[in-house]
Amino acid sequence: MSSSKFYEKKGPFPLKEIIKIIGIKEISTNNKNSKIHSIESLDKATKNDITFLNSSKYKEIAKKTKALACITTSNLSKLLPETCMKLNVKNVLYTVTHVSKLFYPAADIDKPDQHLKGSSKFKTSYKKVKFGLNVLIGKNVKIGKNSYIGSNTIIESNVVIGDNCIIGSLVTIKNSIISNKVHIQDGAKIGVKGFGFIPIQDNNLRTPHVGRVILNEGVEIGSNCTIDRGSMSDTVIGKNTFLDNQVHVAHNVHIGKNCMIAGQVGFAGSSTLGNNVIIGGQAGISGHLKIGNNVKIGGGSGVINDLPDNSQVMGYPAIPLRNFIRVNRNEK
Amino acid sequence: MSSSKFYEKKGPFPLKEIIKIIGIKEISTNNKNSKIHSIESLDKATKNDITFLNSSKYKEIAKKTKALACITTSNLSKLLPETCMKLNVKNVLYTVTHVSKLFYPAADIDKPDQHLKGSSKFKTSYKKVKFGLNVLIGKNVKIGKNSYIGSNTIIESNVVIGDNCIIGSLVTIKNSIISNKVHIQDGAKIGVKGFGFIPIQDNNLRTPHVGRVILNEGVEIGSNCTIDRGSMSDTVIGKNTFLDNQVHVAHNVHIGKNCMIAGQVGFAGSSTLGNNVIIGGQAGISGHLKIGNNVKIGGGSGVINDLPDNSQVMGYPAIPLRNFIRVNRNEK
Amino acid sequence: MSSSKFYEKKGPFPLKEIIKIIGIKEISTNNKNSKIHSIESLDKATKNDITFLNSSKYKEIAKKTKALACITTSNLSKLLPETCMKLNVKNVLYTVTHVSKLFYPAADIDKPDQHLKGSSKFKTSYKKVKFGLNVLIGKNVKIGKNSYIGSNTIIESNVVIGDNCIIGSLVTIKNSIISNKVHIQDGAKIGVKGFGFIPIQDNNLRTPHVGRVILNEGVEIGSNCTIDRGSMSDTVIGKNTFLDNQVHVAHNVHIGKNCMIAGQVGFAGSSTLGNNVIIGGQAGISGHLKIGNNVKIGGGSGVINDLPDNSQVMGYPAIPLRNFIRVNRNEK
Repeated sequence: MSSSKFYEKKGPFPLKEIIKIIGIKEISTNNKNSKIHSIESLDKATKNDITFLNSSKYKEIAKKTKALACITTSNLSKLLPETCMKLNVKNVLYTVTHVSKLFYPAADIDKPDQHLKGSSKFKTSYKKVKFGLNVLIGKNVKIGKNSYIGSNTIIESNVVIGDNCIIGSLVTIKNSIISNKVHIQDGAKIGVKGFGFIPIQDNNLRTPHVGRVILNEGVEIGSNCTIDRGSMSDTVIGKNTFLDNQVHVAHNVHIGKNCMIAGQVGFAGSSTLGNNVIIGGQAGISGHLKIGNNVKIGGGSGVINDLPDNSQVMGYPAIPLRNFIRVNRNEK
Repeated sequence: MSSSKFYEKKGPFPLKEIIKIIGIKEISTNNKNSKIHSIESLDKATKNDITFLNSSKYKEIAKKTKALACITTSNLSKLLPETCMKLNVKNVLYTVTHVSKLFYPAADIDKPDQHLKGSSKFKTSYKKVKFGLNVLIGKNVKIGKNSYIGSNTIIESNVVIGDNCIIGSLVTIKNSIISNKVHIQDGAKIGVKGFGFIPIQDNNLRTPHVGRVILNEGVEIGSNCTIDRGSMSDTVIGKNTFLDNQVHVAHNVHIGKNCMIAGQVGFAGSSTLGNNVIIGGQAGISGHLKIGNNVKIGGGSGVINDLPDNSQVMGYPAIPLRNFIRVNRNEK
Repeated sequence: MSSSKFYEKKGPFPLKEIIKIIGIKEISTNNKNSKIHSIESLDKATKNDITFLNSSKYKEIAKKTKALACITTSNLSKLLPETCMKLNVKNVLYTVTHVSKLFYPAADIDKPDQHLKGSSKFKTSYKKVKFGLNVLIGKNVKIGKNSYIGSNTIIESNVVIGDNCIIGSLVTIKNSIISNKVHIQDGAKIGVKGFGFIPIQDNNLRTPHVGRVILNEGVEIGSNCTIDRGSMSDTVIGKNTFLDNQVHVAHNVHIGKNCMIAGQVGFAGSSTLGNNVIIGGQAGISGHLKIGNNVKIGGGSGVINDLPDNSQVMGYPAIPLRNFIRVNRNEK
């Protein structure tokens, strides 16, 4: 997980302490006394980090990882380089969640920021910002020149907002980096914890969310939208992409540039969209999909498969637009 | 309707006054001077109460009711015991609404709480609670220890919140009983009046909503969700059930334990879900359904029928998952 | 565009200045020095206004227009009367947007109202209104007698609210005219800018939204709904129409009287609904449709065609209800 000022990070921890938490009893290694600085993805991990491998999809990245140790299964462990210690477990995500919570004990739940102050106390620090009334701002918040912040809006600690932004009223922004000329309409909630947990009878285990929301230049977010921050990586919306009202973007979603997302569209977690994608109202995009450039998705569609560049689809489940028209002509 | 501190209750009223309001002119009974204390469901009514019967579905409960009188139709009245006076009308729900409004004249519309005060005035009463700024709290609100209440959040009178809860910012909670370890994310609205009324040309008659929202231990409610309170009974969400962002739960819905409800799912009124139910994003559950335990409902589905335990369905309308896959394979 | 106190209007501008902005170089006319007071629709334009024609659908209105000049294409220009100067361009909407921004330079984006004050400062001006705490009110706001405004709610400048209204908490209202006995539940956002823009690589051109939201007598708007104001015309909701929670109404939509719109329904822009329309939860109505009186649309439907009076439809795309039932019986 990338280091971030948004979450207090603990550690380093001795490898043997982590092994104990995981519940592995016997392991022969010379590295037991090594210090682990972080838990990172396969490609980002250094020789001071622990990583994890949960699917053979990541075979190519796995064999190049520099991580000191890897949480994985006995089946997948052969994909890892010899230099990497294999920590074989039954449920990789469960174990990863436990180790993540060791490093980030406070990122699994959204405690409201305890450092907010009223904007009236900050007027001299933000001379070129126009505030409404009862704007509440955390510590170390940066807001660029000529930006507007609407009334009763809350900007939590360490958020960065660029120049010439317009943030509406009754908005919450946390764990987010917002570029210039971004427009967020009334009631949107940006940077909230995503819907990630390990289901456990009567006591679900929440996944720490240590990613951020990144809104690039010129993005527009409609009224009452919800944008979850990333769990491990970030949730990213590309330059000049516009979202209509009541859109829901889940954790780790990446939306490209110049996209147009109509009202009430929903994205499940970790999907990636290319540039110039157009999505009609109320469509839903399943998790972990790859949607290409210039794709057009009809209103109300349910997309459950990857879509190549320039696709045009519609339907539930979404099929090529011409097939959708043909099928529905027959059914009338 | 169960007595509740949330709504001012009038009465008792003489039976003859109620009969007059209903518009029945001639009725022969020795009980005309009896006092009616409340309007209650068939099973909860005592000999001091009036009840109602609107469908032969409730035949078994009807024949055991202890109510002094029952609003019903001439067809259904034969299902009632001899001891119960039959008040036959054309439109049972219309009449019930009128009688309910007699007892609860203020529960048909949500007037904002006039007893709120800023949390700064309450700091000594809630020593173990961490408040954000501009938290507004009504009369007789209970909040347990180690709970957090986010900024600009409003807790209306008589709400109960347990220990170790985390309530986000810009939240409204009213008419609700919230157990321990509940997490409500930013912008959720809990306990609002449901969408219940008798359609009348140019002047709909709103149904009083005298139920509550009950959130059991460990429940999580996502950002910008809306949870309506019950009309007659309560809206209930079971222990350790998690709702993602922008979920809508209508009046009287009962959701079991350990359920997982993804983003933008909508529930129409009065449905009941078992335990361990998993619902994908944007699915819709029609009203008055019975969904069993361990049911899995695919994203985007429209459920319009009861579902037995362990069902797996998908589609609009929802059909068994294997049929959905087969049908859509043929259509491609 | 109808004159409105909500938007600062510039002008008049000499016709030759507008022609220059449009990018037309040579045009022979005696009117070059005429002043243009406004940009208006074909039927509303006077001889001091400029108008536009984008489709042969408007043939009948076009031939009667009194506008001094019309932005159109070379193909469509023959539909205009001789008295009207034809300004032929490639992209009518792009040019119209530019000319609109000349007249209304501040209506293409929602800057938060800079004139708000706390309701405590207004108590004497609104003696018969019951305010919650931290209600923020702009300039020239009118609120009728016996109305309630909930806490942390924001009413921007020039809004009109009638008698006996109940406005919940955490609501924003701007650019709106609200009649008597309207009920708006917690978290609704009324009058926000619609989702209208000309897509331009890396720098979309936003359409000015100079319309309003008109809520007629007795309307109810559910919790966390979003109602966009009109772009050129108004967004209108008819008398005694009720919207459930999380409904999204886009710009220029006209909903008739006595309609019942269930939770999470979405309307794309510029559709018109008749009276007594009933729409089930999560249904979607495409843009620019004409839905008749007494229409019933099943929950989850996707309506993509006009619907005559008394239609009953369901499905995605929506088809007559009886066909929907037949098709789905076969598929089971």
